[in-house]
Amino acid sequence: MFTYIAGSGAMGCRFGYQLYKADQEVVLLDMWEDHIKAIQENGLKIIGDQEDCVHIPIMRPEEASRKADLVILFTKAMQLPDMLEKIRQVIDQDTKVLCLLNGLGHEDVIKKYIPEHNILMGVTVWTAGLKTPGTVLLTSTGAVNLQSIDPKGESEALKIVEVLNKAHLNVTYDADVLPSIWRKACVNGTMNSTCALEDCTIGEFFASEAGLRIVHSIIHEFVMVGEATGVKLDEQAITDYVMHTSVVAGSHYPSMHQDLIQNHRLTEIDYINGAVAKKGDLLNIPTPYCHMITDLIHAKEDILKIRK
Amino acid sequence: MFTYIAGSGAMGCRFGYQLYKADQEVVLLDMWEDHIKAIQENGLKIIGDQEDCVHIPIMRPEEASRKADLVILFTKAMQLPDMLEKIRQVIDQDTKVLCLLNGLGHEDVIKKYIPEHNILMGVTVWTAGLKTPGTVLLTSTGAVNLQSIDPKGESEALKIVEVLNKAHLNVTYDADVLPSIWRKACVNGTMNSTCALEDCTIGEFFASEAGLRIVHSIIHEFVMVGEATGVKLDEQAITDYVMHTSVVAGSHYPSMHQDLIQNHRLTEIDYINGAVAKKGDLLNIPTPYCHMITDLIHAKEDILKIRK
Repeated sequence: MFTYIAGSGAMGCRFGYQLYKADQEVVLLDMWEDHIKAIQENGLKIIGDQEDCVHIPIMRPEEASRKADLVILFTKAMQLPDMLEKIRQVIDQDTKVLCLLNGLGHEDVIKKYIPEHNILMGVTVWTAGLKTPGTVLLTSTGAVNLQSIDPKGESEALKIVEVLNKAHLNVTYDADVLPSIWRKACVNGTMNSTCALEDCTIGEFFASEAGLRIVHSIIHEFVMVGEATGVKLDEQAITDYVMHTSVVAGSHYPSMHQDLIQNHRLTEIDYINGAVAKKGDLLNIPTPYCHMITDLIHAKEDILKIRK
Repeated sequence: MFTYIAGSGAMGCRFGYQLYKADQEVVLLDMWEDHIKAIQENGLKIIGDQEDCVHIPIMRPEEASRKADLVILFTKAMQLPDMLEKIRQVIDQDTKVLCLLNGLGHEDVIKKYIPEHNILMGVTVWTAGLKTPGTVLLTSTGAVNLQSIDPKGESEALKIVEVLNKAHLNVTYDADVLPSIWRKACVNGTMNSTCALEDCTIGEFFASEAGLRIVHSIIHEFVMVGEATGVKLDEQAITDYVMHTSVVAGSHYPSMHQDLIQNHRLTEIDYINGAVAKKGDLLNIPTPYCHMITDLIHAKEDILKIRK
């Protein structure tokens, strides 16, 4: 199964590395020149639970020409349309596209490029960290849940699950994956924007009673909007999951903090709280907390002059 | 007319200084030891539009013993009850108490200590800055609007207006002062909490479209709650006033930024957005923006470990 990793940051490198080690044909695609050059010259370096270095191919998406059996999408949310444009030439009527991006609403973008029976939506709790160009920190274990958005695609999807599991990616075919996607979005929606704004770790924010009131209000809005779009969500179970995650990840600054505060990069807020606010508006469900935190993050992007 | 300034920060010093220069008997009260000592040893130094140094008396509130004709309250909001406790001994049945604190709801606190016919509520657009202990920067001009909360107190209040105007404080007796108090609270409620949270100047926040959406939502909540409590407020006029102020004060960090970010001190958020959120809850008026920004500020106080 010939696979492209479309977007080879930390997570893309983890999936590419594990497929490569399982003797799958895999090519990393990325747009960051330093990262591409480092891997082309010195290989992809793995540190963390084990040390390794593999000479896995990497190129810019527009340089890819061989038809893909599978594309795993791992871009930042706002880079997704650009990536899909740039890899049109490797996609034919049999190419499966698996989306593992954080956030909500990506299927609406992907459908513009890929027929529904070839789209797999998924969610993962694997983690990874990019230390320097070409060097990725891999610790701990994870899992993937995925589903073909067209039920007709299930048998083909099961073949992909099998291949990914040969690479120990711990993948489950999930006949109802949307609740898991929403649950992870809710983790991001309560931690990323708040810790970026408050300039604090997850543990610091969740230790504050005032912070927790905000967490509960955001979860409530996610659940109201998700349910109205037909996704079955249990508010108490999601709250428990968020609280559990806040303990496990307590010492970390979430990725939006890294983007906004540490690196002055645009955030994915429009695909997390912003997506819920937008869906809420369409469905006449009030989402003031998601609206306000989205605007607070955008205002900070404006203040830091990282929005055009 | 023997007057105490109860809370002699920058604004208290301005009012005390102007009364002193108009040959009124005035004593500053404060709790900051360095500031008291500096003024006792070297006098109150005035810089800015003019330079001056005056040997005006200053002491701790519990040291005051002479009965007051007038007390002008200029504490931080959260220090108000403590100050009223500590000056009980200088208040008799004729002492007038003028409240010029920022924020909302102070009359409910003052009523516990002072009979209604002796309470004057006011609002001022004078400004002042404390540069170092004992040194105050005074520039530009301002005005005061005040009202006796008991109509029976009006004639006595007019005498006070006359004395304050001898000190060029530009005071008007306002038969309906609450709209002005709410309007100023709305300026604070749109600028203080937001700029403290975003770590930016007023101009930077108001230059952001996303920031402006938040401004308009907060104004709307203030107007809804104010009107429900019987205060006549014109949302468009308040919006114009807030926008005008944001231009005039564009280069400044508001006082809450100074408190929270620069000096790691507790903020007055509970008396601005927090007061509107609380009143809104009692009146069943949704105030999610005021609730959320109040909790975001409190969370930051927790993160900075400046809340007990």
